[in-house]
Amino acid sequence: MGKNLVQKILAAHLIEGELVPGKEIAIRIDQTLTQDATGTMAYLQFEAMGVPRVKTELSVSYVDHNTLQSGFENADDHRFLQTVAAKHGIRFSRPGNGICHQVHLERFGVPGKTLLGSDSHTPTGGGIGMIAIGAGGLDVAVAMGGGPFYLTCPKVVGVNLVGKLSPWVSAKDVILEVLRLLSVKGGVGRIIEYCGPGVATLSVPERATITNMGAELGATTSVFPSDEVTKAFLKAQGREDAWVELGPDADATYEETLTIDLSALEPAVACPHMPDLVKTVREVGPIKVDQVLIGSCTNSSYTDLMRVAGILKGKTVHPTVSLGIAPGSRQVFEMLARNGALGDLIAAGARILESACGPCIGMGQSPNSGAVSVRTFNRNFEGRSGTKDASIYLASPEVAAAAALTGLLTDPRELGEAIDVPMPEQFLIDDRMVLEPAADPAGVEVLRGPNIKPLPINQSLPESLRAGVILKVGDNITTDHIMPAGAKILPLRSNIPAISQHVFAGVDATFAERAKAAGQGFIVGGQNYGQGSSREHAALAPMYLGIKAVITQSFARIHRANLINFGILPLTFADEADIAKVSQGNVLEIADVAAKLGASETLEVRNVTTGETFLVRPDLTPRQVAIIKAGGLLNYTREQA
Amino acid sequence: MGKNLVQKILAAHLIEGELVPGKEIAIRIDQTLTQDATGTMAYLQFEAMGVPRVKTELSVSYVDHNTLQSGFENADDHRFLQTVAAKHGIRFSRPGNGICHQVHLERFGVPGKTLLGSDSHTPTGGGIGMIAIGAGGLDVAVAMGGGPFYLTCPKVVGVNLVGKLSPWVSAKDVILEVLRLLSVKGGVGRIIEYCGPGVATLSVPERATITNMGAELGATTSVFPSDEVTKAFLKAQGREDAWVELGPDADATYEETLTIDLSALEPAVACPHMPDLVKTVREVGPIKVDQVLIGSCTNSSYTDLMRVAGILKGKTVHPTVSLGIAPGSRQVFEMLARNGALGDLIAAGARILESACGPCIGMGQSPNSGAVSVRTFNRNFEGRSGTKDASIYLASPEVAAAAALTGLLTDPRELGEAIDVPMPEQFLIDDRMVLEPAADPAGVEVLRGPNIKPLPINQSLPESLRAGVILKVGDNITTDHIMPAGAKILPLRSNIPAISQHVFAGVDATFAERAKAAGQGFIVGGQNYGQGSSREHAALAPMYLGIKAVITQSFARIHRANLINFGILPLTFADEADIAKVSQGNVLEIADVAAKLGASETLEVRNVTTGETFLVRPDLTPRQVAIIKAGGLLNYTREQA
Repeated sequence: MGKNLVQKILAAHLIEGELVPGKEIAIRIDQTLTQDATGTMAYLQFEAMGVPRVKTELSVSYVDHNTLQSGFENADDHRFLQTVAAKHGIRFSRPGNGICHQVHLERFGVPGKTLLGSDSHTPTGGGIGMIAIGAGGLDVAVAMGGGPFYLTCPKVVGVNLVGKLSPWVSAKDVILEVLRLLSVKGGVGRIIEYCGPGVATLSVPERATITNMGAELGATTSVFPSDEVTKAFLKAQGREDAWVELGPDADATYEETLTIDLSALEPAVACPHMPDLVKTVREVGPIKVDQVLIGSCTNSSYTDLMRVAGILKGKTVHPTVSLGIAPGSRQVFEMLARNGALGDLIAAGARILESACGPCIGMGQSPNSGAVSVRTFNRNFEGRSGTKDASIYLASPEVAAAAALTGLLTDPRELGEAIDVPMPEQFLIDDRMVLEPAADPAGVEVLRGPNIKPLPINQSLPESLRAGVILKVGDNITTDHIMPAGAKILPLRSNIPAISQHVFAGVDATFAERAKAAGQGFIVGGQNYGQGSSREHAALAPMYLGIKAVITQSFARIHRANLINFGILPLTFADEADIAKVSQGNVLEIADVAAKLGASETLEVRNVTTGETFLVRPDLTPRQVAIIKAGGLLNYTREQA
Repeated sequence: MGKNLVQKILAAHLIEGELVPGKEIAIRIDQTLTQDATGTMAYLQFEAMGVPRVKTELSVSYVDHNTLQSGFENADDHRFLQTVAAKHGIRFSRPGNGICHQVHLERFGVPGKTLLGSDSHTPTGGGIGMIAIGAGGLDVAVAMGGGPFYLTCPKVVGVNLVGKLSPWVSAKDVILEVLRLLSVKGGVGRIIEYCGPGVATLSVPERATITNMGAELGATTSVFPSDEVTKAFLKAQGREDAWVELGPDADATYEETLTIDLSALEPAVACPHMPDLVKTVREVGPIKVDQVLIGSCTNSSYTDLMRVAGILKGKTVHPTVSLGIAPGSRQVFEMLARNGALGDLIAAGARILESACGPCIGMGQSPNSGAVSVRTFNRNFEGRSGTKDASIYLASPEVAAAAALTGLLTDPRELGEAIDVPMPEQFLIDDRMVLEPAADPAGVEVLRGPNIKPLPINQSLPESLRAGVILKVGDNITTDHIMPAGAKILPLRSNIPAISQHVFAGVDATFAERAKAAGQGFIVGGQNYGQGSSREHAALAPMYLGIKAVITQSFARIHRANLINFGILPLTFADEADIAKVSQGNVLEIADVAAKLGASETLEVRNVTTGETFLVRPDLTPRQVAIIKAGGLLNYTREQA
């Protein structure tokens, strides 16, 4: 039986387990990446492991999140990251060099390799045929130390692309269609493999937009074949040597399949406040737009911004729209500066922002109260923009540029002839802002600022658990809900005691205080709990506050892994309806939890307050049971050593 | 007897009083400018006056301070400013269009006119022969309403420039030399008029650098003649019509004079933490530099940045230096983008920041803990960078660029041949980002966000004052000490109850709480109290907290005017040594203050705690006495109406 591309790459990297969906497997990791908001913790954890030099083929530390620098914390973190990278064999991409995923795709990604990144949008690398997976910083630290990455072997969904995109319809509309069809939890436990004749019609940046935002499906990752298009892209990046041809066998099979006719798509938006609330621009109609933002790891490539520049050239941003543009990388930025397109954008009235994640992570450019903001980003969770009552629409660069000109949500097909931007035969190549590791690691002093606090360590699992439900929440709780980011909170990422005061701040202002006071506690949630970013702070900070277990109807993959990594028990209701048996404030008890974990498929939970009982499933592998009992992966690793 | 330039312009605008130094005069204001951090209050005050349309020749509202937008407040302020401008006949310069002083110089300033701006660096306009004065927002609001601007007639200091700057020595070194000679209080009660044969050797941007940073002398303003150089600049801006020749009479006299030999100057820096702690770069030596920032209203002109681009072209920023560059205006930015210089800056590794004040006001780019940061800005007050223990050195663009390359404070003369950048014969002219006022003002709705709170109004002066000394401070207290700015506090500028909690926060964390609890109180300070910015919040917020009087050895001009405007009594010790008779926490009493004010030159203050007495001087004009008794200028204006 023929193999699909995912099976081929996973098989080539398999260290433990069998490639059977649902079973735990361990794979070898070739490359890692970190960004600064998750990276400081990842490198503190790497240091704690005592490995002198990374054992991966390539590890890169990027700075793209905390670049506003509203206080000393960010620059201190950058210095820590730069020096720790120099000491341990990691390349360091300096602030201003661009967004990790965009730069990694341009300069470092290799078809057929595995990439583990401490950022949920790591699947961007799937655009050139990598298995690129987002994970918590601790998993990345383990991979840097040479350890395998454990994951549940996913089902492979074959998305058969047919036809060709119409003018003014773009890659963003493809992934929005996939989101509309599958929803934000449709990808859980799955890898999305794009195949079919439509693949060849899409450029690498287009493919990367699609795999990037596959993160919003909850998918483990997404991947495209590596073909002639990939070869041309790598050649234009001066990296033709990195190319290998890779694709599914002709008779490959998939656990699930889906066909998308590219020619049938039209410009679309994801409506507030979820990436899967997708409608066509025509369906939503010409609502008034206050702000347009173009950039982020989803849509800030050279060709994306050249199309925007082509649309805006000689025109003027609408007087009541603020248009911000952040180029995805220094390569993109300099190319636009060299070829006149940046001049056209400035002339049109665009506000040019530093090449970084910026407003996509709420780092500046918060819109006005009650604003409608159209963004080429990947997430529109409520409040993530920094403005609680703003309505964020996710759209293609074309839709965004059209709205910037008209002040209304506008189908770009109304603008006339589409702008054709050919892929450059040669990108501008200049890696001077990526620093090589030190030749003399012993001579490097790792510089730590006062905001960089030691990693808190959990205690081992108690024999029995008896604690109150500190919070009960509904479906689709994101890591932005659990551990908010944005300009005010992100700078605290290296300081768990400080950042933990903001856990669930937007959902329940007294959560942190109550959890801390209680000493230990439960959280109860609905479906798809923990979707969104890979931030392990969404596990680490609740752990610091004393959360011992989270009981939900279902979990998002990375967050569940992070909970396990930090020794918080992730449990699902055996009968989803039993969520009705728990209210906030109830006291729950799981007797003999340490003994029963791993020994039985379900655990009995007694609601001490109501007297009712119900069953929950830990669904843990023996290795995960051992990690939970040890109080987290770091303790477990130490016990093993 | 011949007249100097200052006398000529003041005489042409005199409405009340005599041009005798020390006497109060009132002058007609031709133009006003505001920026967003002071502008929201200024326009709230303008609205409170009930004047439908500004009565000036030109009023422009700029947005350059709060452009990071870390929360909804900034964008709401921008919307308020845009709509209030449209309604009342004010031009609106959109976010991203640049720094108010740079844009105003390029596009709006007119030789011989008066300009009142709610920003202390308004004297930048003196670079083209304007009398351009910084003032509190309320003074600007009154001027917009057609009222005169009251000030103490200053002495005129003639600074006779001879010789010509050597290669690598620049305008910044001239104003640093003046600061070294005169100190940060040397300009108090004075206007600095530059004259002599050296004037003709300086371009308009160079002159504007010098008049801009004259603010740091405490001077009322600084001014250059309007000559052929001015004409060429205005012609290149497409505004030759605005030019008039203006200069001192051949036999003009000055109250004080000073001669500076331009050819004797060398590259200099202002050392931490005061702009007058000036040494040559060679004296300071090659200290390690962590950060370099180029921009601000002092040094972000086209020629400044072209020289920097020339220095950096083909080179790489030092690996341990973070270099940020913020172009002064959209004109500068687009010109650099069009001519390749921006590409050179990006290639060298510069982080390009939005065209705005940015890090000069602590709005981002806070350096690491204990950093040395070299900046082309105008102020290096402790903590203003957002990093409390950072050491900020103020320098020319040439010194900054040299440090960015070497990682050390470096005399740029070591770099070889100097870069010659000719003044362009034609600037790129495009005013599309300056919106004209509405043709139909009645149809404009002024949009107010929830953070825009009504202006608090003071009560009239009580018959007697008896209150505690809430705080006693030393010399050279800046408005940054009194009312901190930076990324976290600036967004609260439209909300006095919220921002007042941060008054003196860096000096004494419990000040606001103690003042509020006491209900009313005194502040006691040393020399040059209130130097720095024009922010009226440094008076308005203490007023809100109950401060009734400030007793010092001397005041900075704008702050003293702001205290009066908001009904806080500004008093100076008749005998400076008497400051020793007051300690923090003492209770002071000024009996029958309302009756005595204006009737006697001094007031007796009784220290109730110690039993001692001492005399203080109010030094108020009859008009100011009436304002204080009314509880501030707004109350006074209403009483008059």
